[in-house]
Amino acid sequence: MKSILEIPTVALADAGDAIEIIDQTLLPGRIELIRLRTAQEIWEAIYRLQVRGAPAIGVTAGYGMYILAGQIEAETTADFLNKLRQQADYLNSSRPTAVNLSWALGRMMKQAEACAAAGADIAGLREAMRREAEAIREEDTDICRRIGEHGLTLIHDGDGILTHCNAGQLATSRYGTATAPMYLAHERGYHIHVYCDETRPLLQGARLTSFEVSSAGIETTLLCDNMASALMQSGRIQAVFVGCDRVAANGDAANKIGTSGVAILAKHYGIPFYVCAPSSTIDPQTPTGADIVIEQRDASEVTELWYSARMAPEGIDVYNPAFDVTDHSLITGIVTENGVMRPPYRF
Amino acid sequence: MKSILEIPTVALADAGDAIEIIDQTLLPGRIELIRLRTAQEIWEAIYRLQVRGAPAIGVTAGYGMYILAGQIEAETTADFLNKLRQQADYLNSSRPTAVNLSWALGRMMKQAEACAAAGADIAGLREAMRREAEAIREEDTDICRRIGEHGLTLIHDGDGILTHCNAGQLATSRYGTATAPMYLAHERGYHIHVYCDETRPLLQGARLTSFEVSSAGIETTLLCDNMASALMQSGRIQAVFVGCDRVAANGDAANKIGTSGVAILAKHYGIPFYVCAPSSTIDPQTPTGADIVIEQRDASEVTELWYSARMAPEGIDVYNPAFDVTDHSLITGIVTENGVMRPPYRF
Repeated sequence: MKSILEIPTVALADAGDAIEIIDQTLLPGRIELIRLRTAQEIWEAIYRLQVRGAPAIGVTAGYGMYILAGQIEAETTADFLNKLRQQADYLNSSRPTAVNLSWALGRMMKQAEACAAAGADIAGLREAMRREAEAIREEDTDICRRIGEHGLTLIHDGDGILTHCNAGQLATSRYGTATAPMYLAHERGYHIHVYCDETRPLLQGARLTSFEVSSAGIETTLLCDNMASALMQSGRIQAVFVGCDRVAANGDAANKIGTSGVAILAKHYGIPFYVCAPSSTIDPQTPTGADIVIEQRDASEVTELWYSARMAPEGIDVYNPAFDVTDHSLITGIVTENGVMRPPYRF
Repeated sequence: MKSILEIPTVALADAGDAIEIIDQTLLPGRIELIRLRTAQEIWEAIYRLQVRGAPAIGVTAGYGMYILAGQIEAETTADFLNKLRQQADYLNSSRPTAVNLSWALGRMMKQAEACAAAGADIAGLREAMRREAEAIREEDTDICRRIGEHGLTLIHDGDGILTHCNAGQLATSRYGTATAPMYLAHERGYHIHVYCDETRPLLQGARLTSFEVSSAGIETTLLCDNMASALMQSGRIQAVFVGCDRVAANGDAANKIGTSGVAILAKHYGIPFYVCAPSSTIDPQTPTGADIVIEQRDASEVTELWYSARMAPEGIDVYNPAFDVTDHSLITGIVTENGVMRPPYRF
């Protein structure tokens, strides 16, 4: 069995007629590759998180536009471009928050339009789109490697590093964003320990990050999201690295639900909190975080566990304290049957 | 079908030969009463969280000591007290963090010893222990009602209130601790909205709190633990009420894992954070939170979902945003392929 890190997250297959992805909803129990051929299949795969992570969604969108371009029946390039734009709009509706989806779709459209303006025929447009989609994927790999190099300057030998959700290789074409510095640190002989928030409701941290990071041979511990405070309090975390779906012009960053909480905890405990993202994630058109549309998802993700069996790799280390201690400085009042006590507390 | 709020959490049954509890591991799907008769059954029920919540564990310990006293075969009161002490030590080993367990066991022992010192025979000791156990339960109800009255002074009409884990009626003999002010507010016509952290790994918030609070007719919304930051950011939370397992002499409070994180978030967003607990929870013998033993539990609670079907009440409202926004002031650096950017961010 190949390691999960040897399998491309997103690739072209069937001589360019399909996208092949790892169905991430089945991990870590089953490594299954699936092929997407129609616009609806691509839309569903993004919506259902079979492929997820802002950069990987961008790569999927690039390949998707190329494949769908091959299915368009059009007499003129104008007609072709119109139909292509409809497909882009449709794919863009699958998930609203990450900027990479609309960025990749827009880039593919622009490339097609530029070639059309330069007089290319439909076959020429398609060929240009293939090259553009490949460029998006290759750039993604290159960008992630470079994020890793820069992020590595922030890691010290012996560090404990906390991450949230999956901004790993499974969210990109290679290396990941938040994980890139970790993989590089490990390759270069640093001894690091990676702590993965499980990331409810869909458990990307448990199912994906703890799986891929431990597959690389890095010491890995899994925790529930609400255990991060106790873990930081225990002194085991020296830095937090997370990915990002969109950075606003003022630096506000939208990422997986729970990220802002981790950042507040990190600040409280004096731990640096780093956001790792391709520069394409930065959106100067969005002034602040309040202007970012946050996707609201279905209640059943919370009330019904869609993964009823084991949802973390076999043998993964787990941090599972039943309680934690809240510092008295954080308690506004203690209410007993005798009344409301206020600080300072002296019992 | 009786409402969950009409069924005692812990009661004597079989003419004093058994404790009857609601098996809380089956909620909200099934309301099933079970009877505990042996020391091992009582120990297991506490360890497996069939009965949980510091005050309810205290009541169970009280009744448990009374029942076990009835099973002791002893010729002398000294022999009886020795055997009783062994049972107390055994029960005390089921969960280490909550002070109420050892407090209730100690109180029952003291009562037996005092009666023995006063010359009572074994039958007399048993009778005194029954009265003491009943007193623990009645005091618990009275204390919770009084916590409710005091806590009510901290609630305003229209408030959104966040709670973590279950410090509800199911954690006590009645009213709950953190929920007591909510139940009283509702009874007195305040319009409040209660938000329940689901509380991984064992989902007490989803399975128990959202169930009992919504059963009372209070508007209730369920969220994953990592959504609390976004919820507070949205302005919907005016106060946090949580229960507590042990308060140290300096006011540090041990409670369900994740509580300290909620407190840090509340402080960050300027929201008051109240701990509700019987005064017996305050332990002046423990100088600070660092001196509280924190129970570490089994990894399988995190890696395998022990509740594979629906784990929240039917129809419960759910808050399920997929992302949140991290304020730029919390981000130490943004790492892109171009390097590490530091504040101030201007894109």
